[in-house]
Amino acid sequence: MALLFYSQDDDAGAWRQELSRRLPELDFRLWPDIGDPADITMALVWLPPPGLLAGLPNLKAIFSLGAGIDAMLRDPTLPDLPLCRMVDPSLTSSMSEFVLALVLRYHRNLDVYERQQRERRWQLELPRPADATRVGVMGLGVLGADAARLLVRNDFDVRGWSRTAKRIEGVTSHAGAERLDTFLGGLDILVNLLPLTPETEGVLNARLFAKLPRGARLINVARGRHLVEPDLLAALEEGRLAHATLDVFATEPLPEEHPFWGHPQVTVLPHTASYSLPRSGAETVVENIRRLREGRPLEHVVDRARGY
Amino acid sequence: MALLFYSQDDDAGAWRQELSRRLPELDFRLWPDIGDPADITMALVWLPPPGLLAGLPNLKAIFSLGAGIDAMLRDPTLPDLPLCRMVDPSLTSSMSEFVLALVLRYHRNLDVYERQQRERRWQLELPRPADATRVGVMGLGVLGADAARLLVRNDFDVRGWSRTAKRIEGVTSHAGAERLDTFLGGLDILVNLLPLTPETEGVLNARLFAKLPRGARLINVARGRHLVEPDLLAALEEGRLAHATLDVFATEPLPEEHPFWGHPQVTVLPHTASYSLPRSGAETVVENIRRLREGRPLEHVVDRARGY
Repeated sequence: MALLFYSQDDDAGAWRQELSRRLPELDFRLWPDIGDPADITMALVWLPPPGLLAGLPNLKAIFSLGAGIDAMLRDPTLPDLPLCRMVDPSLTSSMSEFVLALVLRYHRNLDVYERQQRERRWQLELPRPADATRVGVMGLGVLGADAARLLVRNDFDVRGWSRTAKRIEGVTSHAGAERLDTFLGGLDILVNLLPLTPETEGVLNARLFAKLPRGARLINVARGRHLVEPDLLAALEEGRLAHATLDVFATEPLPEEHPFWGHPQVTVLPHTASYSLPRSGAETVVENIRRLREGRPLEHVVDRARGY
Repeated sequence: MALLFYSQDDDAGAWRQELSRRLPELDFRLWPDIGDPADITMALVWLPPPGLLAGLPNLKAIFSLGAGIDAMLRDPTLPDLPLCRMVDPSLTSSMSEFVLALVLRYHRNLDVYERQQRERRWQLELPRPADATRVGVMGLGVLGADAARLLVRNDFDVRGWSRTAKRIEGVTSHAGAERLDTFLGGLDILVNLLPLTPETEGVLNARLFAKLPRGARLINVARGRHLVEPDLLAALEEGRLAHATLDVFATEPLPEEHPFWGHPQVTVLPHTASYSLPRSGAETVVENIRRLREGRPLEHVVDRARGY
């Protein structure tokens, strides 16, 4: 009953401490010192090297350290075991706060003033009330729904779109492919928080941009592979989009020669929206460890057919 | 009983409409077509030319179109009549929203990432929870108190400073000159919302910056004359302050040759925090017109000895 920990991005010491505080008997094995692979029954991982999990003969469940599990699903050797996403209240609130920060920045024209400052130009855009700014959230899972609620609390006109219908108080919700154009047609700001699946890969493309009102702004805080980069550059060029704020990229870190870095209408952020914190995220993992031990169904299990 | 309207920055037509809707009998005179100056008993003004009001023999009260009346008080010919500030719910909420936008921008290190983008540098600052960011609001009048409340609702650690003691739920308040250093010593972000008076002019100076923790950030959304500009440049140079966001300047528009425009640690904004909207601001003015007619005491009267 040992747990394997693997991540290049998370603080293994802090995770060990937070898990041990709740489960003192937990046998925590930090890769590469995993001992006998046959001891490992659980894995808590982020971007594990392909094949790592397949080499554990007694593995029973995989817990992701991140909310998005698209990268893991691309590993063809991934064992067919329950795969549980991270649900961490502080990851969720950090994402929502970040979305609010970026939406307020657009709403108050701070992107316009950044550009004017570079040109030493003083020109006022009269502020308008938040309920005159129409913000659309694509993807209404745990993260998207929470972000939409925070935007509503801050008086924005919030619309949502998701594959299947969701009800969120104060949010005008659209569901399914046939409602996408209606959703897009009324937006000043589009926020992407979809999961990355074969179906959503490349969803931010020329066809979608063409359905947005002229001068709309884009915020992508989900995955780089949602975006067709040449289509974004073309939409900015032709004025369809006024500005884009990107926190995620097909290749991270963004290569130094990439055109986004120097683009006056693109803000490049280094994947900073949110992280799982051991203190709060450990609760989710501990609950699933207990369920696994007691033979109860696990929580937050990914539907592999859907891809999220 | 005519009302004189004067402003180069406000929409006279909209004000006339909103006032007439509530007081159809109102005799609205738009400068320079004021008719017989002896008819004018009230003035609704923003930055009137010195002497304009002194030339109205039957003037009874002056209503400011803005929340700050410092510029008007510098007119030595200003008649000694009740001078009422603008209190407009939408002016207040627009200011608070703007303060939240700027505080979130600092809290989420968007200023740092702007700079990194210019250098094509990908480097993550791990986000921290809002309650780990200590925001100080100087000035707890209508605007400062409302901004402080909105910051509290968004989970920031909010401290306040004012000349006289104020109680705001969730805000650690300090009052008086002797508490200023204590207030400043614990801040990550300082927001200035003081009224401009002879006492507060130049309050953002080297002595004050020296009391802030190293690397603090400054937001000035009050008046340009609160700030001693060379002291700010020196504080940024020596790393005492990490960044400043300025919406107000001693001279507006900011002259093209001013060093703030090209400074990598200064964000220049074109006085965009908030404006009085005729629709909501008209209520305050109408109430005072009624009070004046009925001989009742006016609301929001400036204390000229205090200067606000």
